[in-house]
Amino acid sequence: MADPSTCPPLTPSSIRAAYQKINRYIHKTPLLTSTSLDAIASSRDPTIYLSDTPPPFSRSAQGPDADSGSGSGSGTGPGGHVAGPNVPKFRLWFKCENFQKIGAFKARGAFHAVTRLVEELGLDEVRRRGVVTHSSGNHAQALALAAYTFSIPSYIVMPTISTASKIAGTRLYTPNVIFSGSTSQEREAVVADVVREKGAILVPPYDHPDIILGQGTAGLEMEEQFLEATATATATGTNPAAVTAFDAVITPLGGGGLLGGTATYFSDKPGTLVFGAEPSFQGGDDGRRGLLEGRRIEHVKTLTIADGLRTPVGLTNWSIISDQRKVEGLYAVTEEQIKMAMRLVYERMKVVVEPSGCVGLAVVLFNAEFRDMVVQRQRQSQGEKEVWDVGVVFSGGNTTMKALSKLFADAVEVRDGDTAKEREAGTVAMDGTRNVEDVAG
Amino acid sequence: MADPSTCPPLTPSSIRAAYQKINRYIHKTPLLTSTSLDAIASSRDPTIYLSDTPPPFSRSAQGPDADSGSGSGSGTGPGGHVAGPNVPKFRLWFKCENFQKIGAFKARGAFHAVTRLVEELGLDEVRRRGVVTHSSGNHAQALALAAYTFSIPSYIVMPTISTASKIAGTRLYTPNVIFSGSTSQEREAVVADVVREKGAILVPPYDHPDIILGQGTAGLEMEEQFLEATATATATGTNPAAVTAFDAVITPLGGGGLLGGTATYFSDKPGTLVFGAEPSFQGGDDGRRGLLEGRRIEHVKTLTIADGLRTPVGLTNWSIISDQRKVEGLYAVTEEQIKMAMRLVYERMKVVVEPSGCVGLAVVLFNAEFRDMVVQRQRQSQGEKEVWDVGVVFSGGNTTMKALSKLFADAVEVRDGDTAKEREAGTVAMDGTRNVEDVAG
Repeated sequence: MADPSTCPPLTPSSIRAAYQKINRYIHKTPLLTSTSLDAIASSRDPTIYLSDTPPPFSRSAQGPDADSGSGSGSGTGPGGHVAGPNVPKFRLWFKCENFQKIGAFKARGAFHAVTRLVEELGLDEVRRRGVVTHSSGNHAQALALAAYTFSIPSYIVMPTISTASKIAGTRLYTPNVIFSGSTSQEREAVVADVVREKGAILVPPYDHPDIILGQGTAGLEMEEQFLEATATATATGTNPAAVTAFDAVITPLGGGGLLGGTATYFSDKPGTLVFGAEPSFQGGDDGRRGLLEGRRIEHVKTLTIADGLRTPVGLTNWSIISDQRKVEGLYAVTEEQIKMAMRLVYERMKVVVEPSGCVGLAVVLFNAEFRDMVVQRQRQSQGEKEVWDVGVVFSGGNTTMKALSKLFADAVEVRDGDTAKEREAGTVAMDGTRNVEDVAG
Repeated sequence: MADPSTCPPLTPSSIRAAYQKINRYIHKTPLLTSTSLDAIASSRDPTIYLSDTPPPFSRSAQGPDADSGSGSGSGTGPGGHVAGPNVPKFRLWFKCENFQKIGAFKARGAFHAVTRLVEELGLDEVRRRGVVTHSSGNHAQALALAAYTFSIPSYIVMPTISTASKIAGTRLYTPNVIFSGSTSQEREAVVADVVREKGAILVPPYDHPDIILGQGTAGLEMEEQFLEATATATATGTNPAAVTAFDAVITPLGGGGLLGGTATYFSDKPGTLVFGAEPSFQGGDDGRRGLLEGRRIEHVKTLTIADGLRTPVGLTNWSIISDQRKVEGLYAVTEEQIKMAMRLVYERMKVVVEPSGCVGLAVVLFNAEFRDMVVQRQRQSQGEKEVWDVGVVFSGGNTTMKALSKLFADAVEVRDGDTAKEREAGTVAMDGTRNVEDVAG
């Protein structure tokens, strides 16, 4: 890896420079909006929209042109769910890094790290030595892809217990997948071997300035897209007042590359508050706990479904995240809340996001502390900021049908007694839908 | 419904006129491409990409900038899967009507039918009488939304056995959901009551010129987007030759509104062949069987997972679909093939499509007869058309996590013995992933 002492400083302008280096190699992922998700997030109790018979949205909150699979209602509902004085109001902007190359934002940091190495050492030298990392997740694929793009050999150390699909994904770009035991020590020992034998250069998954600056380009790109979209809305009169910045941005927090980079990008924009989202399961909220204890938590062992966030925050990342001028706060959500957010994204937005990718939205929808804080700030704004524009980063989309089916299997049990009987009678299909003679339409 | 005798003729220019009427009310849905899906469709045996350890793509077929979650390999694989002389080559263009309002293309036909009624009878008259339909599916929501947009009352007759989520979806836009028995006779009797009592105007789900012309706007829109994308590629030099038309377009076939409309739109473009895709389960391929028998099949009773395609082809639609100058051929796929296509769309493209929406892609990937036909035509083109540009319509995305989980539950069983033991030992998470101490990345 490039020597951190030679790295650009962790500033917004370094992120702009990083973007110039990598934008030709990565996808400019879409920034999506969803009328339904806005209405759900701006309702008193978003969980009611997870029921089999969700209520209509409050008419006042929504125009008639709601988006797919949902929309505004006739306003005749009981009103228990409608917005009120203690309900936060959101306009959400989803940065879809699930559509990024290799299916996650990690491509940004990996391409930046590799282009920086090439600049510093020259392409021939990097090709001669190769790059190495240890990862069981998206960073493995991202580094392999970035190296492959420059015809640089890459060596990826993966624990033998890695899932087959992730090993296969990495092998798309490199023949050099090397297996190790699953503890940090075992893996680092194998990496050390590769470094010694091949002279390969280590590219760590998150705890390095070049990686952090690369991930920060997600923040830059989403701000550009947001300003473009709101400028158009202002010009065409569909938006009442000019909008100049996100009120808030929220990203998942695992090792801290994405949150650290995003917070760095917005660090000179005091109008945009940056938040991090973590899973609380088995202490996966090491960042939040660390802030409370006033020190970085170095070890985490959690089996949260948000498998990209099972890591402790890295050292460099901690220095950013624990800086209150950069990160306004961290919030944690339960496994159930992550699953509820996932369901809404699938069913309402028709978009595939992995569990780790949904924790930011889960905080916005379900974390009472976060929502109360927004209500208070919206009240304090004296009517100036009644609706918050919030950028929500969907960090990745690498999951499988098998994993999804397992994750939501409990939802299936509900009517199994009925359906088994009905299936015998020939009136219910494999997916639990019922037959309607001749006339679906 | 507008009297068919007063309807515009079933021609491309009528579809252009329809588009002018409805485009302000509907979403211009994206036309997506996927390097991975292109490579998979252009491989000898696409099913191997469904394995837990899919092979890399052949290097010659793909550049290094593959899209999310996959990409091109180093070409070092055994080569059993690589393209060869008997393998069709595709560039696929996915028209994402799963992102359409109410989650399906049905919004197009419903808005066109309603705007046509308003033109013919005047808004006051239509508001006074209201509209009525019977549907258990996407047409119910689509008509309710279109009517709601013009403040026209709508009466939707749904069988009592409709799924709760579809009833709730319809109730978002109308308080008048009326239940009936599930046979055609029972439902039509209730509709007749509403027509008699309210004077409401019937808007059928597919068998009417205004509906067909509305659905045909999907074809128009995708062709425009395709020509725009290829013109850009030609201008920037990433595309070698100017492309002037889709080689083929394929849509699902249920009642026939979408296929009929699409075939009508392309009927004056002999260079674009139009195909229909059906589920074969329990005789769901009534269109294909009808062509073989030389007559429309009037009754279908199938529990295919493609629940939007359980209907027989309508009368007007049959007149289009059985016209060989308009529809080149119909192909059927198995339940398993539909599920495999769905998995690839979820896992590779990160997009949620309902089973009915995937049948076109399933034909392209897995129907041997279709693929052989393409190989032959590509060979006959003498090198002029070695790769086909195929427009594939994803017709809808209305499914639930519950239905998905049930549909793919069998995929989960594979390692359940292992995971149960491992979960006790604390080394495997809810979604079947395994723990890796401290270092996901």
